[in-house]
Amino acid sequence: MSTTPAVPGSTALDPAVAARLKRTADGLLPAIAQQYDTGEVLMLGWMDDEALHRTLTTGRCTYWSRSRSEYWVKGDTSGHVQRVVAVALDCDGDTLLVKVDQTGAACHTGDRTCFDADVLPVAR
Amino acid sequence: MSTTPAVPGSTALDPAVAARLKRTADGLLPAIAQQYDTGEVLMLGWMDDEALHRTLTTGRCTYWSRSRSEYWVKGDTSGHVQRVVAVALDCDGDTLLVKVDQTGAACHTGDRTCFDADVLPVAR
Repeated sequence: MSTTPAVPGSTALDPAVAARLKRTADGLLPAIAQQYDTGEVLMLGWMDDEALHRTLTTGRCTYWSRSRSEYWVKGDTSGHVQRVVAVALDCDGDTLLVKVDQTGAACHTGDRTCFDADVLPVAR
Repeated sequence: MSTTPAVPGSTALDPAVAARLKRTADGLLPAIAQQYDTGEVLMLGWMDDEALHRTLTTGRCTYWSRSRSEYWVKGDTSGHVQRVVAVALDCDGDTLLVKVDQTGAACHTGDRTCFDADVLPVAR
């Protein structure tokens, strides 16, 4: 089992896509998961080239877990899977937007999204 | 002018908020900007404690530019301002979701969002 993200060029990710990615020093891109129909922003995860390849080809959202140093197919443990609907790369090539169909809660706390619980005070 | 992100604790950001932030090694958090009413994901920027403080208190979305090493009030150059509607921190304390009212294009290319131009092929 790999304990570091894949080295660019070492995976089956389409080279034409890989060439457009601007990765962090750790070889990762932030990936925003959004419910495709309601527009809810569900969570932010991280993908290396291999996680992106799996996300594009398996229909299941796959991340690189920075805390566990392993690939993580969303829902494999919880059943709260993310079916991949569409994936876009941003204008700078450094962020992914993944439109998904989320089963159940996206957040490990049981909340629908990871942004439900901690709203910060905004001055008016 | 500072050329590095603010050191945690050195800004006027509410200490109760600052204590919950989990920053990258560079002292930053990814901040997802979402149009508050349509749900469009507009862009992803980065905030340090000071940028978050300004975002929470000025009503204008403020980022830390990693490429220019300076604070960046969205729209100051382009006129494409982001009025801050709501800000939430995620369950891990490492990502911000900023609901905004975006004037005009969010993307420097003139596209409404930074994710409009490069849709990646998904296997069916």
